[in-house]
Amino acid sequence: MSINPKNKSISELRRDLVSGTWAVIATGRAKRPKEFAKSRPKVEPTPVESCPFEDSMKEGRGKPLLTLPKTKNGGDWWVQVIPNKFPAFGPAGTCEESRQVGPYLVMDGVGFHEVVITRDHHRHFAKFSQEEAELVINAYRQRYLFLAKDKCVRYISIFHNHGQEAGASIYHPHSQIIAIPVIDPDVSRSLVGSQNYFNQNKKCVHCVMINFERDQKTRVIFENAFFIAFCPFASRGAFEVRIFPKIHESCFEQIDEEQIIYFAEALRVSLRKIFKGLNDPAYNFFIHTAPVVRDPAKEFSHYHWHLEILPKTNIWAGFELGAGIEISTIEPEKAAEYLRKF
Amino acid sequence: MSINPKNKSISELRRDLVSGTWAVIATGRAKRPKEFAKSRPKVEPTPVESCPFEDSMKEGRGKPLLTLPKTKNGGDWWVQVIPNKFPAFGPAGTCEESRQVGPYLVMDGVGFHEVVITRDHHRHFAKFSQEEAELVINAYRQRYLFLAKDKCVRYISIFHNHGQEAGASIYHPHSQIIAIPVIDPDVSRSLVGSQNYFNQNKKCVHCVMINFERDQKTRVIFENAFFIAFCPFASRGAFEVRIFPKIHESCFEQIDEEQIIYFAEALRVSLRKIFKGLNDPAYNFFIHTAPVVRDPAKEFSHYHWHLEILPKTNIWAGFELGAGIEISTIEPEKAAEYLRKF
Repeated sequence: MSINPKNKSISELRRDLVSGTWAVIATGRAKRPKEFAKSRPKVEPTPVESCPFEDSMKEGRGKPLLTLPKTKNGGDWWVQVIPNKFPAFGPAGTCEESRQVGPYLVMDGVGFHEVVITRDHHRHFAKFSQEEAELVINAYRQRYLFLAKDKCVRYISIFHNHGQEAGASIYHPHSQIIAIPVIDPDVSRSLVGSQNYFNQNKKCVHCVMINFERDQKTRVIFENAFFIAFCPFASRGAFEVRIFPKIHESCFEQIDEEQIIYFAEALRVSLRKIFKGLNDPAYNFFIHTAPVVRDPAKEFSHYHWHLEILPKTNIWAGFELGAGIEISTIEPEKAAEYLRKF
Repeated sequence: MSINPKNKSISELRRDLVSGTWAVIATGRAKRPKEFAKSRPKVEPTPVESCPFEDSMKEGRGKPLLTLPKTKNGGDWWVQVIPNKFPAFGPAGTCEESRQVGPYLVMDGVGFHEVVITRDHHRHFAKFSQEEAELVINAYRQRYLFLAKDKCVRYISIFHNHGQEAGASIYHPHSQIIAIPVIDPDVSRSLVGSQNYFNQNKKCVHCVMINFERDQKTRVIFENAFFIAFCPFASRGAFEVRIFPKIHESCFEQIDEEQIIYFAEALRVSLRKIFKGLNDPAYNFFIHTAPVVRDPAKEFSHYHWHLEILPKTNIWAGFELGAGIEISTIEPEKAAEYLRKF
């Protein structure tokens, strides 16, 4: 078989700097940005009367874990954190010991599973006001700092599912916080990748990525004084967006009041661009940050926290599941060019 | 905060022996097996007249790459392999060099993307006759051996998507073969895990798993002379099934005529159990085998090829995507007990 080097290839493999995995960017069969903004079946909102998040006391969830009023002077709650009614991790069991079952290691699923809800039944993150977005980030941070004190907790995952296709089983906009007794494998791999890169280059791998994106500009969709949002060069999927603090910071929870304002803006603007440009697609976003240790900023000084937004533009099928390689049907350069317009 | 060790935990973390990642098995909020067999919207089959797989010549795909008749004496084709009309990887470009783009490594997406189709427009894998299943496995092997000769190919991924929810965009039953110029990251991690386990224990980690399952029996759903199918102890998702050759073999493509009969039976029976027990869910299956090198059985002698079936029982949301941990809402022991009945 012969390979004709004169022909342009139909796709490009780009190697992620942190994980070392390859992303496939379809260049030959790439879709136009507008094709992703397909008409979607109209989702019937759950009537507010039957929403389980309207009144957590009535629902038997008990007292909210955190309540933030709209203004510093009080008033009705605007953001509330409540326990998940069907938690994947709970306070029962023991986290000190893992036990051997045959050749396997087993642990109790000790941890916490909480839900962060905003007051309005319909208004989702892409439509949040600046104040609303700031309050939500504030709630993330407050709960993070509280849960990190628990002796069992090793990692805290903060994420948001929007739309049924992205796994949001309840219509009312909400984020989730899961605190678990192990360091999750995806973050583990990132930590190892980031540590290895630092050992070899004496540089933060994420700072290198950020500098490359700031230099090239083609994939950047938004930037303010403290944060930058871009479609990464080795994008895992169509219209993936990552938001990084521009200053090297390992820990999300160390974000200060001023940075929260800029982070909330970057997130809100990015989600609005996706909402408008892609016609309200389902999406997931999640924060990747250093694990819970005594002094994470020191122990994981090589790491750089960030947020990833993955719009649900395709289904993970046999190749993605089996090979762990995603095929992105649009070049991140074109995706970013399109999102910048909105 | 205090953890009450007397209470039963609501979930269990089980550590995968090969990858080292943790799977969450929900024990507290686990569903009953029957709940997974939900009524599904009836999928309207594409009319046979507009099926792109009925006549590959007419569709402008050119001559089939492989045609297998029903009997050794010839007759109409029963299994056919054709090029994918919208390939993710193609023969153009060059595979010898990767190039540097800023801090990143980039390669052309050189490779092959083929489709394996069976004659009947409606009859899918769970309904295949034994002969049909054998012919499909035969086609997999023949194409694998052919593609492995190409100097650019480093890994060959064989997979099957059933149902729209699992990413099957064409109704007519078909599998896909993608040959790529890099070793995919999921297999890479398995190879490293399997090598590490071998170095430490002087044993194949998959043989250890198989022996544990054969000994415990609770998660086994089917077994014949050469193959075993079970719901793995550290299951990544509800009703996941893995099929292994019971004898240590590193390479799928070295399967012989007799083994093909037993492999086809194990796969067909497993898929039928899932089809009947779960009311025809969408699913993906894929083969994990040693990469393409000069002598894979020697170079990757520690590896043990296998097939994984993942029924589409839930949506990967923010936690799964962000943390890489799947929450399995049924214990694999209960899933296997249920599947054994069908």
